[in-house]
Amino acid sequence: MTAVVPPAQDVLFHVLLALVVVVAAARACGALVARLHQPPVMGEVLAGILLGPSLLGQVAPAVMHYIQPPAIAPILSSLAQLGVMLFMFLVGLELDTVRLGRRTRAMIVISQVSIVVPFALGMGLAVFLHPRLSTADVPFTVFALFLGVSLSVTAFPVLARILTDRGLQGSDLGLIALSCAAVGDVTAWCLLALVTAVASAALASAWITFAITAAYLAVMFVVVRPLVARAVRAQELRGTVSQGAIALALGGMLLSALATEAAGIHAIFGAFLAGALIPHDSRLAQTLTRALADVVVVLFLPVFFASTGMRTEIGLVSGASEWLICGLIILTASAGKFGGAFAAARVMGFAGRDAAALGVLMNTRGLMELIVLNVGLERGILTPTLFAMLVLMAVATTFATTPLLDWLMRRGGAPAAEPVRS
Amino acid sequence: MTAVVPPAQDVLFHVLLALVVVVAAARACGALVARLHQPPVMGEVLAGILLGPSLLGQVAPAVMHYIQPPAIAPILSSLAQLGVMLFMFLVGLELDTVRLGRRTRAMIVISQVSIVVPFALGMGLAVFLHPRLSTADVPFTVFALFLGVSLSVTAFPVLARILTDRGLQGSDLGLIALSCAAVGDVTAWCLLALVTAVASAALASAWITFAITAAYLAVMFVVVRPLVARAVRAQELRGTVSQGAIALALGGMLLSALATEAAGIHAIFGAFLAGALIPHDSRLAQTLTRALADVVVVLFLPVFFASTGMRTEIGLVSGASEWLICGLIILTASAGKFGGAFAAARVMGFAGRDAAALGVLMNTRGLMELIVLNVGLERGILTPTLFAMLVLMAVATTFATTPLLDWLMRRGGAPAAEPVRS
Repeated sequence: MTAVVPPAQDVLFHVLLALVVVVAAARACGALVARLHQPPVMGEVLAGILLGPSLLGQVAPAVMHYIQPPAIAPILSSLAQLGVMLFMFLVGLELDTVRLGRRTRAMIVISQVSIVVPFALGMGLAVFLHPRLSTADVPFTVFALFLGVSLSVTAFPVLARILTDRGLQGSDLGLIALSCAAVGDVTAWCLLALVTAVASAALASAWITFAITAAYLAVMFVVVRPLVARAVRAQELRGTVSQGAIALALGGMLLSALATEAAGIHAIFGAFLAGALIPHDSRLAQTLTRALADVVVVLFLPVFFASTGMRTEIGLVSGASEWLICGLIILTASAGKFGGAFAAARVMGFAGRDAAALGVLMNTRGLMELIVLNVGLERGILTPTLFAMLVLMAVATTFATTPLLDWLMRRGGAPAAEPVRS
Repeated sequence: MTAVVPPAQDVLFHVLLALVVVVAAARACGALVARLHQPPVMGEVLAGILLGPSLLGQVAPAVMHYIQPPAIAPILSSLAQLGVMLFMFLVGLELDTVRLGRRTRAMIVISQVSIVVPFALGMGLAVFLHPRLSTADVPFTVFALFLGVSLSVTAFPVLARILTDRGLQGSDLGLIALSCAAVGDVTAWCLLALVTAVASAALASAWITFAITAAYLAVMFVVVRPLVARAVRAQELRGTVSQGAIALALGGMLLSALATEAAGIHAIFGAFLAGALIPHDSRLAQTLTRALADVVVVLFLPVFFASTGMRTEIGLVSGASEWLICGLIILTASAGKFGGAFAAARVMGFAGRDAAALGVLMNTRGLMELIVLNVGLERGILTPTLFAMLVLMAVATTFATTPLLDWLMRRGGAPAAEPVRS
């Protein structure tokens, strides 16, 4: 195997080769981490990093270039972005807006505190990191806001997966953790949208970004939302979901993603909002989820992780001082997320062990964090070195969740969070 | 709107824009042709041609370049090829190999005659066309074989759609037409595989192509087929289809496509064969079909048609003599397919009207023909001018099916093909 740039007619061959390797590596690593009682998503992240410059690029650079030659990088990157869009659309589809509306005081307090504390710590950390790991191109405000968001993300789907694997999704602890993560997610996405808008505005024209975003949100909530609700009600009466309805939903998602991308925030917000506008328990949402979930998880997400892994160069983090900074980031992120959630849960009347379990769960970052970090890298807010450090932070905090939870659970029998409703 | 090549960061914007326009145009044209009682696929073909250099490129070239800038052409082309692969995988999944095994003598005779006659006519036509519309690079044998295949394809899915729309899929005429088309399809694909192998061999090393293809087929039928059958039986007993099974099936499809692509025949054969090896009525096949069918039809196939349309320059067919050649191709293709099926059906004891209906149905070319033609264009066997003529032939013969069938049906009441079983 030699590192050659393929001629145009070999593009399909190399795209297929990359897909086969990426899907196989993701499944293999998923099976491997399952033995460590880690969720499959960790295996996929790991596979991506192993296939990239951090391992394969060191051991056998020729093989890495053969598998992912520069000529097909834009194609894989587009597939990855479409995959994440479809995934965010699915997350939006599964979002139970009605249930979010019934949220309790405890949920709001815990979720907001567990965002505000790491966000504030991230902003503080930025004072230290900006002169060391950023460039003059990135204004401090943008950098600090982005670091704040990076530290305050919770991976709702990974959390859901961990809880389901342990049969905790129906328990009080599980329900409160899930609700906090969902509310926290929405808050974090709003913050990220704000930060990218500020970042784009700092780089381009502020007014256009804000005007298009405001117009987009107005159209989505005032015009599209009632139309979707009416169409879905009519659809429910007819029984079967027509192909036309699916085409409309997917076309609408693409259009919504295009609008947010054009506005200067990111396509994933449009895809997410399009999903959230479709009632979560409608037959249309269920049909779309059944149609997309497996293909997205099996085929598209591994491509996303692989392209994230390709961009992650752990080798860039070099020397004791940089590894110390990396450790500091992991500590700050964990302290903020765990500390915020734990303190808020204690104040709201949770027992110590359950508050600790909640804190550990909220510290899961997984896929969502990687999406945020990729946005930061694409927009030029993060340098490749800081990107690598934050990826390590995401991997470390997510890996830590399962053993810490095991340890907490062993210490005190079955989970029984006190139901604090208000 | 101006025709600018987008910088790298705008790639996602342009990919999304192209997808939105392509999906919307496909649905709009689909709705339009539905009023003419044409199957939706004709609308999608039409949308592709309208968005390409044949119409939009003439009327507003700047808009066409804005919607499909050269920078995203490889990305759209990869999406289109992945889409066709997934589609061929679905066609393979739906192929009822057991039923094919129970085929009657009438079916075999009609399907083979309706391949042999247009194939022979195509070879004959090649004697006339090779000096006029080919280049010295393409050996006459390859050119003639390819033209033969082009004229003998029947579009199984379009045929199925037309029959379903008219409620004929359960009638004797419908069943025989479907079976003939399915058998004919398999024959035509084998021929195409042979021709591309000959073409690749003519250009590269013959032995490697044949050796890899033979090894691939041996592995698929001797090793993979029993393994798949056993795994699917085990899966059936467990009840639900796991994500691991879906990952294996999709990964297997990618690997099979990669093998045929590497062998020098085309990725679509590997995808098709992977689908055909999974038992048609298993729960796995049904789950995969449910998961893929809508997304492929709504999202991926319109991209394929659009990229076919982008390559079709009807303007290349210029002057009376070239239009006469185009007409000659349409006549030869129709005479061969209709004539072959009609004569064989009469010999096998069908009434005149039913034999004619069968002939008209078998003359449907649609999507399958476009797949074949794209292979020819990619491999350099067809010049862009001949490609445009053959696309026109495919469109014309498919468009003609519905009105001709209407006319035949009006002439003689309800369809009642004599069941000739042997």
